[in-house]
Amino acid sequence: MTTTSPETLLVIGGDATGMSAASQARRLKGPDALKIIAFERGHFTSYSACGIPYWVGGEVSSVDDLIARTPEEHRARDIDLRMQTEVTAIDPANHRVRSRNLKTGNDVWTAYDKLVIATGARPVRPPIPGIDAPGVHGVQNLEDGQSLIHTLEKTEGRRAVVVGAGYIGVEMAEALLHRGYEVTVLNRGEQPMATLDADMGALVHEAMNGMGITTVSGAEVSKILTGDDGRVSGVATEDAEYPADVVVLGIGVEPETTLAEKAGLPLGPSGGLLTDLSMRVRGSENIWAGGDCVEVLDLVSGQLRHIALGTHANKHGQVIGSNAGGGYATFPGVVGTAVSKVCDLEIARTGLREKDARAEGLQFVTVRVESTSRAGYYPGASLMTVKMIAERRTGRLLGVQIVGREGAGKRVDVAAVALTAGMTVDQMTALDLGYAPPFSPVWDPVLVAARKAVAAVRQAGG
Amino acid sequence: MTTTSPETLLVIGGDATGMSAASQARRLKGPDALKIIAFERGHFTSYSACGIPYWVGGEVSSVDDLIARTPEEHRARDIDLRMQTEVTAIDPANHRVRSRNLKTGNDVWTAYDKLVIATGARPVRPPIPGIDAPGVHGVQNLEDGQSLIHTLEKTEGRRAVVVGAGYIGVEMAEALLHRGYEVTVLNRGEQPMATLDADMGALVHEAMNGMGITTVSGAEVSKILTGDDGRVSGVATEDAEYPADVVVLGIGVEPETTLAEKAGLPLGPSGGLLTDLSMRVRGSENIWAGGDCVEVLDLVSGQLRHIALGTHANKHGQVIGSNAGGGYATFPGVVGTAVSKVCDLEIARTGLREKDARAEGLQFVTVRVESTSRAGYYPGASLMTVKMIAERRTGRLLGVQIVGREGAGKRVDVAAVALTAGMTVDQMTALDLGYAPPFSPVWDPVLVAARKAVAAVRQAGG
Repeated sequence: MTTTSPETLLVIGGDATGMSAASQARRLKGPDALKIIAFERGHFTSYSACGIPYWVGGEVSSVDDLIARTPEEHRARDIDLRMQTEVTAIDPANHRVRSRNLKTGNDVWTAYDKLVIATGARPVRPPIPGIDAPGVHGVQNLEDGQSLIHTLEKTEGRRAVVVGAGYIGVEMAEALLHRGYEVTVLNRGEQPMATLDADMGALVHEAMNGMGITTVSGAEVSKILTGDDGRVSGVATEDAEYPADVVVLGIGVEPETTLAEKAGLPLGPSGGLLTDLSMRVRGSENIWAGGDCVEVLDLVSGQLRHIALGTHANKHGQVIGSNAGGGYATFPGVVGTAVSKVCDLEIARTGLREKDARAEGLQFVTVRVESTSRAGYYPGASLMTVKMIAERRTGRLLGVQIVGREGAGKRVDVAAVALTAGMTVDQMTALDLGYAPPFSPVWDPVLVAARKAVAAVRQAGG
Repeated sequence: MTTTSPETLLVIGGDATGMSAASQARRLKGPDALKIIAFERGHFTSYSACGIPYWVGGEVSSVDDLIARTPEEHRARDIDLRMQTEVTAIDPANHRVRSRNLKTGNDVWTAYDKLVIATGARPVRPPIPGIDAPGVHGVQNLEDGQSLIHTLEKTEGRRAVVVGAGYIGVEMAEALLHRGYEVTVLNRGEQPMATLDADMGALVHEAMNGMGITTVSGAEVSKILTGDDGRVSGVATEDAEYPADVVVLGIGVEPETTLAEKAGLPLGPSGGLLTDLSMRVRGSENIWAGGDCVEVLDLVSGQLRHIALGTHANKHGQVIGSNAGGGYATFPGVVGTAVSKVCDLEIARTGLREKDARAEGLQFVTVRVESTSRAGYYPGASLMTVKMIAERRTGRLLGVQIVGREGAGKRVDVAAVALTAGMTVDQMTALDLGYAPPFSPVWDPVLVAARKAVAAVRQAGG
């Protein structure tokens, strides 16, 4: 019987990907075989950033609800978790990372056999004058959420401006509405929800107006206005000024890959780390990366994309932990599914938009149908609009967008699975989906769209 | 320019399949090219039989709501629809059918070039003494629904017994509960919802008890009891007697193929007509059949099954109408998806149950997980149980059953599409399903089950 010293797995970043990877590796290998050290610069681990808007809006009462696992719970599983400790350098040649204890200022180098980079994303903060003024808030992490709630609680004025009309923007608009604010959303693009085509975004715009959320499109913010006290007082675009007691930035995020870039690790077109299907960083033997700091393969277009989404981050962590723990798993890619809501409006998409398909040189047909969430005669049946994009000639499904009320959003999952399977719209018309009057019309809305798409493909010819 | 006389398409049965076929054929060919005659022995066309429980229960206020298209609307589209006219014989050798006008008693033969058989299903009525007593009701068609509502309105007692605990039985139990009845469901099997495995049926049983619906399992009805007035007074099993002011039969249906059988057309193991993928009756050139009177291919087991379900009936009609109208379409088969509810309990299934898999000689693993409909911290998140069955060694998905509250039922669609695509549970774990806290936990319940199934397949070995 020989005793070997355990390997060391270092994890940079204590959120979804990092701690999922650590936990899964621990499941596969005990502390005698694998030492696991995780570094987290903040105060929280394994939390749901996606839940922040609902915490701010008051649906979720406590920050604790958003935390899936505390540092103590991780430590109880033999993970040496170092909180408020920021990794400041990765040295792949010497298999070590440098970290700084933010409480003491001490720097130390720690050697690794295996490394996981899960540094996440950082909010885009364009160089707008005044963007750092008190009363201007991002909502990227729990500290941001706490800070915003603090501001909302002490602010007397009730005018809020949200900059950006993507997922975060519209969810924050809802949260502020719930808080009793008069909400204006400033949207640079043609319509809110640029992850949809503009015709579907227009439906969101109309619905938001109906909810009392003022949505201004084509509004490029030029300046954050401040009062005599230095606090935010409004937002200026080229065309107008919008008074504001609080401003929330929901402009989007970009991969946080500063450390990786300095270490010479390969980045893709969106600035995210490049990995293989096992989530191992390209060109490295013993470094994995996942979550919001990597690019993923879009299975529909065949292109790399950066998608910051908790569900991918968790899957990546699971795959990385399996591989780092001596098991085997891969992450094949995404089809670009996303679902969101503003008040009772549900918004979903998967696959390619028209502009994506065009950019890939694909020729396609597009159909739009209105149908209902339940049998038309069943109480609570609500209208939804389903847009479907199919490739010309082959009829292959390329994308689906849905805007509607209760029961609309998760219907996109059917299309997500069909995209993954490479189905044609003709094949989709025969799908055996659950039917009963409280759940669906006799032809599910997705199938109604598929039938219309079949006709459009036929009409478009070869 | 030559003038040819139009072909004649005859349709037997004016409900989902028959009138969908007629309408689709009419879309493809105008009245100059195709004469369409449809025979319906009842008073209604194109109605939702699946909606009857909700009409009886009061959620749907008028029978008109259940009618998708009236006879007049069909006639306005140049369909010669003959109501209260029963087809009494099919003569394939001479390309004609005999029909009887039920109002006049007149019999006539009508010639066809093309024939659609859409005779539907008939309720199983076992030879139980007293089954025809006043106060005992089936719920197969709108006439049955009207008759039951009439009985409920004039009955003073408030004790109802439902015989059968399948979809119709549990939906009728809910309807009678809504009407203020004290409801007892007598179930011959081990658990209600025999379309689920017994362990999942037990969850339904427990929930029904919680709703105040008394559910008696292993209860074989031996006699309908009647009072001095000849009206129903109760239901007797071998073990007990259950007093009843009204009795509803929800025992299931069988294919109505009396005419077809007499005409020598081929029937399958469940007594349904046998067709090819174009829904043409096997061995015939110009006869199609669809809906509740045919057997369909179960794509998971490769076996023929009889499934009476409105969504299939409509799809069949669409396919038949395309082919009869000179177009081309096929119906590839089903995967056995069904969804239902009792009050707020949602019940769904797709693919094979354990006993189906066993009957097919398949070896498999089974997992069961509990998860939530939304992120656990999001208001309204409710528990659901997902059972997943996967083939040993290959990991191919074989079936899924779900029992839960709001948001549980339609999740089965993801599994239905995965079954259609022949996915393994390993492939399913990477599915890019819609995630946001109001819609799903970060791992959708179906994916949680898939992950556990992957581990079970691995553990079961080769």
